[in-house]
Amino acid sequence: MTYRAPINDMLLALNHGAGLKAAIEAGHYGDFDADITAAVLEEAGKFAADVLAPLNRVGDEHGIKLEANKVTTAPGWPDAYRRWTDGGWNAVSGPEAFGGQGLPLAINAACTEIWSASNVAFGLCPLLTLSAIEALDAHGSDELKHVYLEKLVTGEWTGTMQLTEPQAGSDVGALRTRAEKQADGTYRIKGTKIFITYGEHDMTDNIVHFVLARLPDAPAGTKGISLFLIPKFLVNADGSLGQRNDIHASGVEHKLGMHASPTCTMTMGDHGGAIGYLIGEENQGMRCMFTMMNQARLGVGLEGVGLADRAYQQALAYAQERKQGKAVGKNGRGSDAIIVHPDVKRMLLQMRAMTAAARSICYATAVALDIAVRASDAKVRADAAARGALLTPIAKAFATDIGNEVAYLGVQVHGGMGFIEETGAAQHYRDARITSIYEGTNGIQSIDLVTRKLAASGGASVWALLAELDATVKQVEGSNDPAFGTTAAKLRDALGALQRASRWLLDRVGTRPNDALAGATPYLRLFGATLGGCMLAGEALAAKSHGDGERYVTLARFFAENVTVQAGSLEKTVTDSAEAVNGADAVLLA
Amino acid sequence: MTYRAPINDMLLALNHGAGLKAAIEAGHYGDFDADITAAVLEEAGKFAADVLAPLNRVGDEHGIKLEANKVTTAPGWPDAYRRWTDGGWNAVSGPEAFGGQGLPLAINAACTEIWSASNVAFGLCPLLTLSAIEALDAHGSDELKHVYLEKLVTGEWTGTMQLTEPQAGSDVGALRTRAEKQADGTYRIKGTKIFITYGEHDMTDNIVHFVLARLPDAPAGTKGISLFLIPKFLVNADGSLGQRNDIHASGVEHKLGMHASPTCTMTMGDHGGAIGYLIGEENQGMRCMFTMMNQARLGVGLEGVGLADRAYQQALAYAQERKQGKAVGKNGRGSDAIIVHPDVKRMLLQMRAMTAAARSICYATAVALDIAVRASDAKVRADAAARGALLTPIAKAFATDIGNEVAYLGVQVHGGMGFIEETGAAQHYRDARITSIYEGTNGIQSIDLVTRKLAASGGASVWALLAELDATVKQVEGSNDPAFGTTAAKLRDALGALQRASRWLLDRVGTRPNDALAGATPYLRLFGATLGGCMLAGEALAAKSHGDGERYVTLARFFAENVTVQAGSLEKTVTDSAEAVNGADAVLLA
Repeated sequence: MTYRAPINDMLLALNHGAGLKAAIEAGHYGDFDADITAAVLEEAGKFAADVLAPLNRVGDEHGIKLEANKVTTAPGWPDAYRRWTDGGWNAVSGPEAFGGQGLPLAINAACTEIWSASNVAFGLCPLLTLSAIEALDAHGSDELKHVYLEKLVTGEWTGTMQLTEPQAGSDVGALRTRAEKQADGTYRIKGTKIFITYGEHDMTDNIVHFVLARLPDAPAGTKGISLFLIPKFLVNADGSLGQRNDIHASGVEHKLGMHASPTCTMTMGDHGGAIGYLIGEENQGMRCMFTMMNQARLGVGLEGVGLADRAYQQALAYAQERKQGKAVGKNGRGSDAIIVHPDVKRMLLQMRAMTAAARSICYATAVALDIAVRASDAKVRADAAARGALLTPIAKAFATDIGNEVAYLGVQVHGGMGFIEETGAAQHYRDARITSIYEGTNGIQSIDLVTRKLAASGGASVWALLAELDATVKQVEGSNDPAFGTTAAKLRDALGALQRASRWLLDRVGTRPNDALAGATPYLRLFGATLGGCMLAGEALAAKSHGDGERYVTLARFFAENVTVQAGSLEKTVTDSAEAVNGADAVLLA
Repeated sequence: MTYRAPINDMLLALNHGAGLKAAIEAGHYGDFDADITAAVLEEAGKFAADVLAPLNRVGDEHGIKLEANKVTTAPGWPDAYRRWTDGGWNAVSGPEAFGGQGLPLAINAACTEIWSASNVAFGLCPLLTLSAIEALDAHGSDELKHVYLEKLVTGEWTGTMQLTEPQAGSDVGALRTRAEKQADGTYRIKGTKIFITYGEHDMTDNIVHFVLARLPDAPAGTKGISLFLIPKFLVNADGSLGQRNDIHASGVEHKLGMHASPTCTMTMGDHGGAIGYLIGEENQGMRCMFTMMNQARLGVGLEGVGLADRAYQQALAYAQERKQGKAVGKNGRGSDAIIVHPDVKRMLLQMRAMTAAARSICYATAVALDIAVRASDAKVRADAAARGALLTPIAKAFATDIGNEVAYLGVQVHGGMGFIEETGAAQHYRDARITSIYEGTNGIQSIDLVTRKLAASGGASVWALLAELDATVKQVEGSNDPAFGTTAAKLRDALGALQRASRWLLDRVGTRPNDALAGATPYLRLFGATLGGCMLAGEALAAKSHGDGERYVTLARFFAENVTVQAGSLEKTVTDSAEAVNGADAVLLA
C-alpha cells in the first residue's frame, strides 16, 4: 500500500481553512508567489511516494542497531537521506542567507505532513533539525551561525534537542547536566540525557546537539538552565571535521513504535567533558529552547495529521477491496466490498473528517506563525503571534489525539488482518502512540492552553478567534444549503459552549487553579472540536464557490454531527467535574 | 509490577451493580451459598498473582515458536497450565456431571476478569475451552460428551473454535471447508482455517477442535453450515490417545499483541481429510456456534475489563512513585509524585471509572445468563434470557472499547516511559487491540444490538431495562447527597437520550435499515455510557449503606460527569448523522 499526498484537500485546508490565500492577498507574505504552493506539494508528494514510503515498513522491521556507540539505521535509509538533502527538501523553509529557500512555514507544514504520512520515523529527523535551525538562527552568535547554520539548513548535518534526563521529563527544571566555562570561552559539559531522538545515526558525517545544562552557580529550576551547541565532531577553522567530541550514544530504547528512529541515551563526560558553545545568554536556555519547542510542537501535530492520513488511505483501499457480506437489500450471490456497510462508511468518514480538521488547525497555526514574522504591520504581527501561541498547543494535542484515534480505526477497518503486523495498519497505530507524549505530553499542552494561552490578556486571543469563527457560522447559516444538515446548529451550540467554558476557566485560573487544571484536557478537546468544525465548514463553503463542494460539505457535516456535537457535554465536563477530580484521593489511594 | 485482584470492587459490582445478591435472595440461584463468592475470588486472585502474572511479560517477549507443525509456548507456560488444571480453575463453572464445580457463570466471569488482568494471553486458552464445553454440553451426543466433555471441563484437553477462513471473516456464511459423511457415520473434513487461537500448543496432550464446515449438498450461506468436533488425536475406546488426526498448524501469525497466544493457520486434508464428528444436526452449525460465541463474547468483554484494570493498577503505582513538578501552591524544594496533578488524577479516575462500569455491565450479563438457566420460573428465565441477549453485545463492545481506551491512558500516565516496551504499559495497549475485533468486531456487536436485540419484541427488553435504571436514578435523586454532584441530572438526561434514540432506531430498523445501521456504533456507546453510569450510581448507594460510600460516590459522579454526560451528543449523532454516513460515497470515493 503506497501513499499519495491528498493535494486537493491540502490546498483547500491551506488556502481557505488556514487562511493562507487571504493572508497573501492582504500582503502579509510580501512577494511570495502563491502559484508555487501546488507545485511544491506535488513534488514533495512524488518524493515521498517514490523514496520515503517504500522505506517505512523496512524501517519498522529492521529498526536500528547500536554497536560500540555507533548506530546503524535500516537498509536504504542513509541513501534516502542523501536524496532528501540533494532534492533540497531539508531547506524548504530555511533562511535564504544560509542556503534555505525561505518558503513560508505554512508550505513546510504541508510538506511535514507529507513526510510524516509517508515515513514518520524518517521525517522526525529533519523535524528536529528544523527546530535546531530555528533556535540557532534566533539566538546563536554570528560565529556559530557561520559554522553550523548552513550545514543544518541543507541537512548536511542534523540537529538534536536534548532536554530530558531520568529525573527531568515534563519537569525540565530538574535537570542536572553540568556545564563549566573554560578559559577559551567554550564550556565543558558532563551528564546524561535520555530519549534523544536521532542522538546518533549513520546518515550524516556530523550531528549538532543542542543540549540544556546547568552552570555551577546557576539558580535552581528553569531559571538556571543554559543552552549549548555540542557538535559530535568539532569543526576546524577551514570547515573540515576535527576531533571527536565527548558525547556518545550509550544506549538505545526498545520502543512500541518508531522503530527506525534511534532513541538514544547520550553520555557526556567520559573523557573529560564535551566541548560546547553557549547559545544566547547564560541561564536563558529555556527561552531559547521554547523557540525550538514551539516549532517542534507544531511539527508533532503534523505527524499526527500525516499518520492519520496514511492510516485512512490504507483503510479506504482495504475497504474497497475486501469483500464480506452484502449491501442491505441486495439480492443474488456474491459479496460486496465492505465499504458498502454503513458502519464501515462511518469509520472511514470519521477518519477522514478528523484528519481534515487536524490538518486545518495545524496549517492555521503555521500561517499565524508566518504572519507573526512576515507582516509589515506591527499590530498584525502581534495579533498573529498571539494566535500562533494560542493554536500551538491545540495543534499539537488535538492533532496527535486524532492521529491515535484514526490509526485505531485504521486497524479496526481491517478486522483481524489489522492485528497482523504484515498488514501495516498496526505500525501506524504503534508509531502514532508517541506523538501524544513527546514535545510536551498532551496534558502539558492542555495546561499550557488554559494557564498561559487562554489567560494571556484576559482571554483576548480566544475572543478574537471566536469572533472569526462566528462569522464562518453565520455564512453557513446563510448558505441555506440542505446538504449541510444540522451543521450550523451544531457549530452555533459549540461556539456558545466554548465561550462559556473559556469564561469559566478564566474566572478560576488565578483563584482556583486546581479547578482550572482539572478541566484542561476536556477544554482542549472542546476547543479542537469547535475550531475544527468551523474550519471544515469554511472550507466547504469555499469549495462550493469553486464548484467542488459536495464532498467537502458532507465531510464538514459529518464532523459537526459526530465530533463538534460533543461540545456541550465537554463544556459540562469542564465546569462540573473539577470537584470529583480534585476530591479523588479517596478513590485513587483507597 | 504485579497484579492484585480488586476484590472489594469486584464484590460490589457483582452483588449490587450486577444484581447477584438480589437474584440469590429471590431464589434464582437455588441453594448456591453466597458466602463462597469472596473466598473463590480471593483464591483466584492469589493464583493469578503467584502463577499467571509473572508469566505475562515472559510470554510477550518470547512469544511462541512453530516448527514442524508443533508450537512451543513460552518458558513456564506448560507448567503454569498444569497448575491451572490441578487447582481446578478450569472447572469453576463446568457441569458437575462432568467434573465441573457447577458454580454460577457470574463467579466464573469475575474469575475470567482476574485471569485476563494477570495474563490475558494465557486466559484466552481456557476461555475458548469454556465455549467449546458450552456447545458440546448443549448440542453434542451422549457418546461425544462421554469421551470429550470431562477432559475439556477439567482442562486436561483444550478446545478451539474454528470459523474463519481467508474469504470468510465477519461473513461466516462464505466459508468453504468441506465435510463428507463416511459409511461409519464420521465425516472427513478438508479445508483451511485461519486465525485459530491456540490451534496448536504444547500445554496438553490433546486438543479438541470445533470446526465449521459445509456438506456437499448444503444450502448456500449460513444455512448450510455444520459443526464438527475434530480431535487432534483420535481417542481409543479405552480413552487412551490413538492416531494423529489430519489437522495441523501450518502457520502462525506475527501479531501486534497477544504474542504468547498462538494464532494458527490450520490445514485439514493433507492426508485424506480430518476425521470429525457431527455436533447437533447437519446444517445447524450456526446455531451451535452461537452458543459458543455468546459465551465467548462475554469472555472477551471481560478481557477488556481485566486489561483495563491491569493498566490502571500499573499507572496508579507509577503515578504514586514518579516525581515531576510540584502541587499547585506548594512551596519549597523537591518534587511531588505526579498523582498530585489534577490532569493526572483525571486520567487515573477516568481509567478506574471506565473499568468499573465495564466490569458491572459484564457481570450483569453473566447474572442474566445464569438466571436464564437457573431460575425455576419460566417467565423469569425468559426475561433473563432476553436481558442476557441484550447485554451481550454491549458487554463485549463497550468493555473492549474501554479496555483499549484505558490501556491508552495507561501509556499516557507513564509519559515517555510508556512508549518503552520494558515498562510493560505498552504490552497492555497492544494486547487490548484485538479484543474489539475478535469474536465479532465491535461494529458487528453494534449491529447485533440494533437489528436483533433492540428490535426483538419491539424493544421490550430495552424498555424493561430502562425502567430498572429509572428506579436507580430516582434513588440517587432521593439520596440528597451533595457528594453526588450533578450525577442524578446526568443520568436522568441520559435515560431520556437512550429512550429517544432507541425509539428512533426502532422506527427505522425495518423501513430504513441503512439509517439504523449508520447509528449502531454511537447507539451502543450511548447505551454503555448510560447503563454504566446507572450501575455505578447504584453501587455507590449500596456502598453508602455499608458505610464505605465516599470513594464509590466520587467514582460514580466522575463517570456521570465525564462519560454519561456524552449521552445527549451521542443521541444527536444517532439521529442526525445517518444522512451524512449514507451519502458519503462522494467523499470516500473521490
